[in-house]
Amino acid sequence: MKNIKEDNNLNMLNHSCAHLLAQAVKHLYPEAKFWVGPVVEDGFYYDIDLGNITLTEEDLPKIEKEMKKGVKSAKNIIRHEITKEEALKEFKDDPYKMDLIERMEENSVISTYTQGDFTDLCRGPHVENTKLLKYFKLTKVSGAYWKGDSNNKMLQRIYGVCFNDEESLNKFLKEMEEAKERDHRKIGKDLGIFMVSELVGKGLPLYLPNGYTLWRTLQNYITDKEVEHNYLHVHTPDLGSVELYKTSGHWEHYKDDMFPSMKLDNEEYVLRPMNCPHHMVIYGSTLHSYKDLPMRIAEIANDFRYEAAGAVKGIERARSFTQNDSHIFCTKEQIASEFKDVLNLIIEVYADFGIDIKEHEFRLSLRDPEDKKDKYFKDDDMWNTAEDALRNVLNEIGVDYFEAKGEAAFYGPKLDILIKPAVGNPVAIPTIQLDFLLPRRFDLTYIDNNGEKQTPIVIHRAIMGSLDRFIAFLLEETKGVLPTWLAPEQIRILPVSNIKHLEYAKEVEKILRSNKLRVKVDDREEKVGYKLREAMTNKIPYTLVIGDNEIENKTLTYRLYGTTEQITVSQDNFIKLIKEDIENKTVRYK
Amino acid sequence: MKNIKEDNNLNMLNHSCAHLLAQAVKHLYPEAKFWVGPVVEDGFYYDIDLGNITLTEEDLPKIEKEMKKGVKSAKNIIRHEITKEEALKEFKDDPYKMDLIERMEENSVISTYTQGDFTDLCRGPHVENTKLLKYFKLTKVSGAYWKGDSNNKMLQRIYGVCFNDEESLNKFLKEMEEAKERDHRKIGKDLGIFMVSELVGKGLPLYLPNGYTLWRTLQNYITDKEVEHNYLHVHTPDLGSVELYKTSGHWEHYKDDMFPSMKLDNEEYVLRPMNCPHHMVIYGSTLHSYKDLPMRIAEIANDFRYEAAGAVKGIERARSFTQNDSHIFCTKEQIASEFKDVLNLIIEVYADFGIDIKEHEFRLSLRDPEDKKDKYFKDDDMWNTAEDALRNVLNEIGVDYFEAKGEAAFYGPKLDILIKPAVGNPVAIPTIQLDFLLPRRFDLTYIDNNGEKQTPIVIHRAIMGSLDRFIAFLLEETKGVLPTWLAPEQIRILPVSNIKHLEYAKEVEKILRSNKLRVKVDDREEKVGYKLREAMTNKIPYTLVIGDNEIENKTLTYRLYGTTEQITVSQDNFIKLIKEDIENKTVRYK
Repeated sequence: MKNIKEDNNLNMLNHSCAHLLAQAVKHLYPEAKFWVGPVVEDGFYYDIDLGNITLTEEDLPKIEKEMKKGVKSAKNIIRHEITKEEALKEFKDDPYKMDLIERMEENSVISTYTQGDFTDLCRGPHVENTKLLKYFKLTKVSGAYWKGDSNNKMLQRIYGVCFNDEESLNKFLKEMEEAKERDHRKIGKDLGIFMVSELVGKGLPLYLPNGYTLWRTLQNYITDKEVEHNYLHVHTPDLGSVELYKTSGHWEHYKDDMFPSMKLDNEEYVLRPMNCPHHMVIYGSTLHSYKDLPMRIAEIANDFRYEAAGAVKGIERARSFTQNDSHIFCTKEQIASEFKDVLNLIIEVYADFGIDIKEHEFRLSLRDPEDKKDKYFKDDDMWNTAEDALRNVLNEIGVDYFEAKGEAAFYGPKLDILIKPAVGNPVAIPTIQLDFLLPRRFDLTYIDNNGEKQTPIVIHRAIMGSLDRFIAFLLEETKGVLPTWLAPEQIRILPVSNIKHLEYAKEVEKILRSNKLRVKVDDREEKVGYKLREAMTNKIPYTLVIGDNEIENKTLTYRLYGTTEQITVSQDNFIKLIKEDIENKTVRYK
Repeated sequence: MKNIKEDNNLNMLNHSCAHLLAQAVKHLYPEAKFWVGPVVEDGFYYDIDLGNITLTEEDLPKIEKEMKKGVKSAKNIIRHEITKEEALKEFKDDPYKMDLIERMEENSVISTYTQGDFTDLCRGPHVENTKLLKYFKLTKVSGAYWKGDSNNKMLQRIYGVCFNDEESLNKFLKEMEEAKERDHRKIGKDLGIFMVSELVGKGLPLYLPNGYTLWRTLQNYITDKEVEHNYLHVHTPDLGSVELYKTSGHWEHYKDDMFPSMKLDNEEYVLRPMNCPHHMVIYGSTLHSYKDLPMRIAEIANDFRYEAAGAVKGIERARSFTQNDSHIFCTKEQIASEFKDVLNLIIEVYADFGIDIKEHEFRLSLRDPEDKKDKYFKDDDMWNTAEDALRNVLNEIGVDYFEAKGEAAFYGPKLDILIKPAVGNPVAIPTIQLDFLLPRRFDLTYIDNNGEKQTPIVIHRAIMGSLDRFIAFLLEETKGVLPTWLAPEQIRILPVSNIKHLEYAKEVEKILRSNKLRVKVDDREEKVGYKLREAMTNKIPYTLVIGDNEIENKTLTYRLYGTTEQITVSQDNFIKLIKEDIENKTVRYK
């Protein structure tokens, strides 16, 4: 899906279309007052004060019709430059524009754009003529507080999008529809995965029982996998002293993205934005010999970052989230083998979710050795060894990768893997980042085989990234049709009649539960057809219908999600079948 | 173990002994200046400025000898009352006493106590004569910053304890020794369970790999157990808006025990001290029918409380901890059955740790109906129904319980179970608290079978309490000899020779690991006898010694913790044996 805000041409087109919208609204609602009309990722919107009028989707065709008249009128869009004083005079009847103008600097040149009978304050640029705005569509309408503050008046926010041709517009609208259908916030709500609450707070989602079942399954999966790979899992507190973050450098470089600190007596604490400092402290708490390395400290760890209230988005971008994090402490000689192990682990994990990660974009960020010397940690030999190691491993594993010269961090090179989702732009989830600096800041050492003190290298690595964002990703990729091993409810049992079949249904439930399967009996007084449809809506992998035959023959009749076929098998065979499905992590979405 | 601070007689005795100590120190170190000498749970201490002298345990006999002279001298201890002005004059050479006097009110009567050549400022009371202080012992010495502030001078803190007779003193010293040996901070360090770090912060312990393995085993155990019992586990953020805690009432009644709040733009957030409000919000997010009740929301949830830096103690009392928490929403009619279910769950869980909870102290806190009416939530019928239900269930289950009339909270009756540990005072871990008020504060409702809105009752309940404190309790009860199912490392494999036996050792490790057993190979170049002793020190349940015989016969020779017998079995039988041990949760401590 195109990001309209980031495409210069489309940005200008959509900005102009916002003016076209405003002009049409002014024609239909002469009392309308206008706040701002910015371009966003998926088009534009305009915030408008319509007095007591609240618009609904049904009002949009009428406005579109009026906008089409504006297109047909083919007015030139003309820029004027005026002084602040002139602007204050020209817009004196519009309190919203006055608010904008008053906050501009005294000597600034202010531009306005006029098309026919409509003039708006705007920095521009705009297209030349309204006839160029033919391929637009209004997409939704909602309320929005003035300046995002709930103490202010509620304005009407009308959304739209504009393209240069019909085909592009239709393609985009279709993709928007698809994205809406896949939106993890919608699926998350439909499937009872999570909720948000103004009272709890912005960007602080709450996982509901189904969501936590999924969360916990992922947590156990990745923890077990890492333990198998000789990671040492720890559990550290969600906060640390400000001194800790001064030592790590976060306080200097990352403070704006952190929550404000809390003073306790004469100590000062802060919620952690990442876990590296805690893991450095653990490494530093004992002496290490080269024989102990590599040491792989891992944690499913809560982190907290300040995100603007407007930027939070379900569990994809929240103020509180949980990372599948690890820090590997190793020698220079171990860089290649550790990098390779992590890469293989990433390949293995993503394969379990049906994703061949090698088909996605590998981006290797290296230093530019020509660049001025203080841009990178000073140790040429270390950089050369590390970068060669990373390249060699990537070549050996056989993936295409892009070398982003000059994009390394100050403290070391890194690999990002950008995954192309079903809709939208690639998302960077797995990452492997070398760090020559942090272990020095914490005075970390090991004794080498000559009995001398050395500084270990740290490898930061994320596989699933944040569990929360990973769940959002999974929900969007699968449209909520989770593989059986992840489905919060794996089996739903529907007795045809509660009087005749409920007892056996409960017996079956007990047997399945004792096999560690997640199962529920739907014992509501509803028709079985209705319950079957609801099981499909809830995306339950297996639905069992229990009637006379099942009781008589001690069999089970199941229906797989997305199919209509009913298959009758013995209890044992059903258990075998679903356990194989779980074991194989079968993917049922496309 | 006696709590000396809480026994009036012993309190006076120990306070007097602190003066005896000070007098002796003054004799030996004439430059000594004295800060305060309070009575604590296990005796007394005195903080003393000895200039540049740092005392060690080896200095204590000398001081004790001098104290004994004081006892022998049989001086009367005489109280004098003086004005503040007189006190300022009398103690003008002692800056510490001056600091205390200056902070007293102008007209206060100040008392001093004199025994022979020594006078100290003291509120008293004291025993009459130093000869009554015969049965004392100095127990340790440490450094302590003046007023607990690390910017101040480090003073010498000498600890001691005093009794009326030798037998009581010896008994207490023995118990102290036992408590020291059982101290979870010592065991936690020895077994690599957790660490603390000044840099991370006070009261913020970090779980090390062994500790997290234990933590996670407990977490999975209790979560699985609760899921089995139809609890719905959720996962909610560690903080909430201040509004949330105003709604719940915590902001008004509990603020002093909370971390300070954090301002983000025009919002204000605070780390949660408990989880009830989040669970209320989840219940309130959907409509409920009486058919949905009881609804049991549970969470392994992080909480944060402000504890004074001096009050924190390992993982037993920390500023950040994790609760095994649940809130049950039910109707008045369901109180009895829910209370019973929770009690049975408590009995079941503690039995898994080898504890027959029925043998411990059950304390039922009820209201005093004679008490003034506004001390309790106003609903006589509710109170009567609830209290009868609780009593009936306790009688039915057949436990002795104490009715603490008048000790109920404003919002409902509760049951506490106080567990008597191997040493020390009973600890209240499991608790079941009814709450008639909180659901009202959150406007929670359900529709009853007449279609009418009703308010559910909330039952707060804790089984393990805080996981952290529970781990501290387990470590102290078991002296670190954890049952196999909880042991972070269940098996250690010792190849007799790395050259000849390491390969097979690793093969065995792989087989055991694939059976989900926690196993390590000790491949250090050390004698097997040394490694065996270390495995015992580390309290590993099973140690396998791999030599020629084991390889030749494909057998395993194991030694159980605390025994010296070596038993040879087939691989399969060993796996069967240890799996049974894990399954049975066999307790190996007494």
